Amino acid sequence: MPIPAPVLYPPFNITRVSHAAHTVRDLERTREFYCEVFGLVVSHQDMDMLYLRGVDEVCHHSLVFRRSDEPPRCERVGLRVLSEAELDKAYEYFAGIGLAPAWAEVPYQGRSLRVTDPMGIPLEFCARMQRMERIYDRPDLQRGSSALRLDHVQLHVTDVQAALDFYFRLGFRCGDYMTAGEHDETIFCAFTYRKDNPADLVFMSGQGPRFHHCGYITPSFQDLFRACDIAGVRGLGNQIERGPGRHSVAHAHYVYMRDPDGHRVELLLDVWHQMLDLEIEPVRWRLFGQHTAGVWGLPAQAAWFYQATEFAGVTPQPVRHSHQMHTLEKYLAARHAENR
Amino acid sequence: MPIPAPVLYPPFNITRVSHAAHTVRDLERTREFYCEVFGLVVSHQDMDMLYLRGVDEVCHHSLVFRRSDEPPRCERVGLRVLSEAELDKAYEYFAGIGLAPAWAEVPYQGRSLRVTDPMGIPLEFCARMQRMERIYDRPDLQRGSSALRLDHVQLHVTDVQAALDFYFRLGFRCGDYMTAGEHDETIFCAFTYRKDNPADLVFMSGQGPRFHHCGYITPSFQDLFRACDIAGVRGLGNQIERGPGRHSVAHAHYVYMRDPDGHRVELLLDVWHQMLDLEIEPVRWRLFGQHTAGVWGLPAQAAWFYQATEFAGVTPQPVRHSHQMHTLEKYLAARHAENR
Amino acid sequence: MPIPAPVLYPPFNITRVSHAAHTVRDLERTREFYCEVFGLVVSHQDMDMLYLRGVDEVCHHSLVFRRSDEPPRCERVGLRVLSEAELDKAYEYFAGIGLAPAWAEVPYQGRSLRVTDPMGIPLEFCARMQRMERIYDRPDLQRGSSALRLDHVQLHVTDVQAALDFYFRLGFRCGDYMTAGEHDETIFCAFTYRKDNPADLVFMSGQGPRFHHCGYITPSFQDLFRACDIAGVRGLGNQIERGPGRHSVAHAHYVYMRDPDGHRVELLLDVWHQMLDLEIEPVRWRLFGQHTAGVWGLPAQAAWFYQATEFAGVTPQPVRHSHQMHTLEKYLAARHAENR
Amino acid sequence: MPIPAPVLYPPFNITRVSHAAHTVRDLERTREFYCEVFGLVVSHQDMDMLYLRGVDEVCHHSLVFRRSDEPPRCERVGLRVLSEAELDKAYEYFAGIGLAPAWAEVPYQGRSLRVTDPMGIPLEFCARMQRMERIYDRPDLQRGSSALRLDHVQLHVTDVQAALDFYFRLGFRCGDYMTAGEHDETIFCAFTYRKDNPADLVFMSGQGPRFHHCGYITPSFQDLFRACDIAGVRGLGNQIERGPGRHSVAHAHYVYMRDPDGHRVELLLDVWHQMLDLEIEPVRWRLFGQHTAGVWGLPAQAAWFYQATEFAGVTPQPVRHSHQMHTLEKYLAARHAENR
Repeated sequence: MPIPAPVLYPPFNITRVSHAAHTVRDLERTREFYCEVFGLVVSHQDMDMLYLRGVDEVCHHSLVFRRSDEPPRCERVGLRVLSEAELDKAYEYFAGIGLAPAWAEVPYQGRSLRVTDPMGIPLEFCARMQRMERIYDRPDLQRGSSALRLDHVQLHVTDVQAALDFYFRLGFRCGDYMTAGEHDETIFCAFTYRKDNPADLVFMSGQGPRFHHCGYITPSFQDLFRACDIAGVRGLGNQIERGPGRHSVAHAHYVYMRDPDGHRVELLLDVWHQMLDLEIEPVRWRLFGQHTAGVWGLPAQAAWFYQATEFAGVTPQPVRHSHQMHTLEKYLAARHAENR
Repeated sequence: MPIPAPVLYPPFNITRVSHAAHTVRDLERTREFYCEVFGLVVSHQDMDMLYLRGVDEVCHHSLVFRRSDEPPRCERVGLRVLSEAELDKAYEYFAGIGLAPAWAEVPYQGRSLRVTDPMGIPLEFCARMQRMERIYDRPDLQRGSSALRLDHVQLHVTDVQAALDFYFRLGFRCGDYMTAGEHDETIFCAFTYRKDNPADLVFMSGQGPRFHHCGYITPSFQDLFRACDIAGVRGLGNQIERGPGRHSVAHAHYVYMRDPDGHRVELLLDVWHQMLDLEIEPVRWRLFGQHTAGVWGLPAQAAWFYQATEFAGVTPQPVRHSHQMHTLEKYLAARHAENR
Repeated sequence: MPIPAPVLYPPFNITRVSHAAHTVRDLERTREFYCEVFGLVVSHQDMDMLYLRGVDEVCHHSLVFRRSDEPPRCERVGLRVLSEAELDKAYEYFAGIGLAPAWAEVPYQGRSLRVTDPMGIPLEFCARMQRMERIYDRPDLQRGSSALRLDHVQLHVTDVQAALDFYFRLGFRCGDYMTAGEHDETIFCAFTYRKDNPADLVFMSGQGPRFHHCGYITPSFQDLFRACDIAGVRGLGNQIERGPGRHSVAHAHYVYMRDPDGHRVELLLDVWHQMLDLEIEPVRWRLFGQHTAGVWGLPAQAAWFYQATEFAGVTPQPVRHSHQMHTLEKYLAARHAENR
Repeated sequence: MPIPAPVLYPPFNITRVSHAAHTVRDLERTREFYCEVFGLVVSHQDMDMLYLRGVDEVCHHSLVFRRSDEPPRCERVGLRVLSEAELDKAYEYFAGIGLAPAWAEVPYQGRSLRVTDPMGIPLEFCARMQRMERIYDRPDLQRGSSALRLDHVQLHVTDVQAALDFYFRLGFRCGDYMTAGEHDETIFCAFTYRKDNPADLVFMSGQGPRFHHCGYITPSFQDLFRACDIAGVRGLGNQIERGPGRHSVAHAHYVYMRDPDGHRVELLLDVWHQMLDLEIEPVRWRLFGQHTAGVWGLPAQAAWFYQATEFAGVTPQPVRHSHQMHTLEKYLAARHAENR
């Protein structure tokens, strides 16, 4: 089986995905999209920077935007460790395997550790952020879909197996994964997690590394549609790229939008599986071939599979198992033929 | 303005759309689809006939299916009048305008009056049905999306203006209508109603007459998705044709499915406008050209606009204002180009 | 049977309950309560008057408040007729039965007809109001529980049978009614309607006439709780008098609040029965004795049964069937003994 | 401050509350209540035993019932540790502090470790259970409120501070706690957790040790009311003891019921705070004195505060800080005086 065994005592304690940082051309337009439609809250905004959090988040930011006239990029993906002591262990671990970690001063965060993972993804670890007010209990202050918190980040990588091997050594586990076809043992995508729901980091085959999307939890179906309705009212209806619908893999009900700079973001419901117990074994799905139970909904646009945000200064490379992309192409052609 | 003035004292009192009757090839497959996914309730089933109602319906049936090995057809559209006396007035009215009404014995219905309207649609009027138990208050007996009741029937007609003129004389009013383009005064579709929400009969330009779909009310977003999820679990996920989404015209949140014989059926939420007051004037929308506020969602498949159920023994005719179909074609091409 | 037969051709066409007018001591406090918690919209506010409507209401007002330093009172209950011509018929009818109708100029309404019904309730009929924007499609503008529209008004009367007899002659019908005990044929309360759901006017035995409450429709359970949560956040949590819960009679899920001047107002969900068809016969319920199916929830406070708003200048009289009040007392004592 | 500092490296790794075991007189009646109303699923039933799990639970049981003609009792509270190795560490830890742990063979569980905590609560630790099918993705198989999983267990203890001190040493943290009065530093109740939401074990002052209730997560408001409606339909409406409502402390929307043997059980919504980050500090609330923001809803019945299930063979002792119970009495009298 291609999924590694869980590592129960990893070298340091990552608790969850923490944040993502993007560049955009117009912070005000970005603020409107995320605050009015998704319901994120501004923690800080100035001429050059915009820091946002969900209504349940006590930490300063889960999305950071820097104004730039360059093409929109993702600058890094943030992960949390439990404590400052764990951060020191992280430094030692990464140094030990030759990854050249470096300390960074990052506003509103405690000590921050930067390192590029073997897939080329720029990571940032921290154990503390400035504490903010939760407005989860203040419906009078909430807007849009009242997005609660960052749930996961999905990444295009050229080799999902390599990503799995690396992150399993850090204590990540996997609940669902997918091969492209029935008789294909190479992994097309995999959901990995540290906190006790199915995803912190999701890896999908594609030109990589690239940032595919981040997902925020919304409390209900009604709030999911409220985001869409408000997007429509504000002339942002075309930002909706896929859904509303339901994933067969990973089970969540979702809608995907593109923000005004094209960064993809998902809104999803919170009734995912609890993933604490070791009894829970990885479930294999197939993109194509054997039909999965529970599939419904219109096929995703090709754009959803192929378009993603490049990381600043990182040139994406082609997929290692290039036959996966041929299977994907056939899958999309077949699904779209069914649904004209 | 192309919308006629309301007729406040029509020749007889139609209260609402009542039922539709289709032929299908396999009653058991039909029953599974409507009962397990939509949550309709069987009022009667035998070798040849299946009568269904919603969980809030006290009348015997709102959908009737007859087993037939012929290609699936719609046999008639039913309308309710308030009382037996109103039914006699209906007879006189239709006879007076030369439409050749005829009395029919129909199981589980009181006296029934059949007539073909000027668009070629076979209608059936009645004032009474056998009384059945409402299971609205019995969540323990409900299934699927707990569909409450038949809300409306949508029909393809070759000339929407002619349909409007005929039905306005029967007391129907119109809340929303659509022209194909900005500078096009011919009506592409119109929502007409007798009960106090926006639709009993909806008319859309198309080869006609044909039965486009009937719509059932479901209590909540959660129930709407429940229908989809159960369709998926039962291997009926491909029956979902369009949505879930929101109509810009007529406002409702919806999902469209095709039943196993291809008859289209909609599930929609119940928070439509109340339409009782004469202050409410028809609102004009455009299929194409000027963007309507509140638009979001993926474009409908071409099939949704072009495919429909023929009426038994009635050969569909081409659309009168054929330029509307060219505008539709351009609209679909443009919308699908945006969303690949 | 104590419920009269439906009158299908009443002397004039009432379409629905329309509005209620109260006095309050502080318009700003009133505005906060109804707009922030219930989500009503201000149509007009000045030093002395406040006019509110629901987010789906196209007519100018469904609740009117006049500033007054006197004890809070209800000034009148409004009903709509279909057209100006029906208003003239109403005048003639009331004059013919000796009720002394009088025309009144009322701001934002068309010609208005005032009359006191035989129970002593001050009524106001109109056929037109100033037209306002519906913000049903504007979730970005909605607040609180997004209350859609006025649904019904409940009134204390000394003799429910007399009220039924009067309003049935005006075309009202009855779906649910209640006797106080198993062997008691006198009616304790009755739900009567003109529009096609179960209630426009509800009559309950009590010192009368008094205004018991008016009910607004909210779209979902989530919105119902949102009203409560926002009431709590604004320090108005004690305004919640009863619920959230479910009525056994009339089926609706509800919460009752008292506004800052003590006027009672209900928020309820919209999935009531459709009541158009004559097949639907009145259902008898019992306050006490035989247990009704579907009962759950904590007993109402005694205040809910006994406290109500007096009509301006009208002294309430005792209940005609005084034994009903003894049964009520026993019922409350028994229910509260079960739930300590 | 009376809340201890978090212990980040506890002696062994408890992951979550796992299960509770009760005695009841009639297993069939118990099964009906939990399966039809709450929507739990039977993992095993025989003449003497009934094992239930939530629709998202992959482990064999979260509630266990043993048939007994004795008065209903709680037999033990179960906790999960991450792995078999952690279970051995648990044994050593408890032995080391003199608590006399003992291994037990328990059906459908891996090796199980029993120990009585210093409060007198019989605990059972395990690392494995028999794996069962999750029916989270099978709405067609779900019933009642589709309860997802056991969330927390609330316990009456005579000294909440002592419980906190003990469980903090095991790695539990505290998000919310309550003192009885404004100037009272003794803790009346405290929410402690290991998994990343606000509660695994809740401790409340009362004759102790006793089992107060266990709480299951339900996906939505609609499902919460569905449980109540089905309870009503099945003649179990009187089992509802408190709510539906919202907690000010701990934020969740809830309803409490008593099962047919009087064991209390809660249904609650899942949008609780995520509690992973160390930035999250304990919040102090007051039962009485200073009003907490966001309070609404009717006061709890006295029974909710005073009645609970005894542990088998354990005689409850009086509360250590007896003045807390006087404050509680005054609080209840005041709240009930407000709400008659």
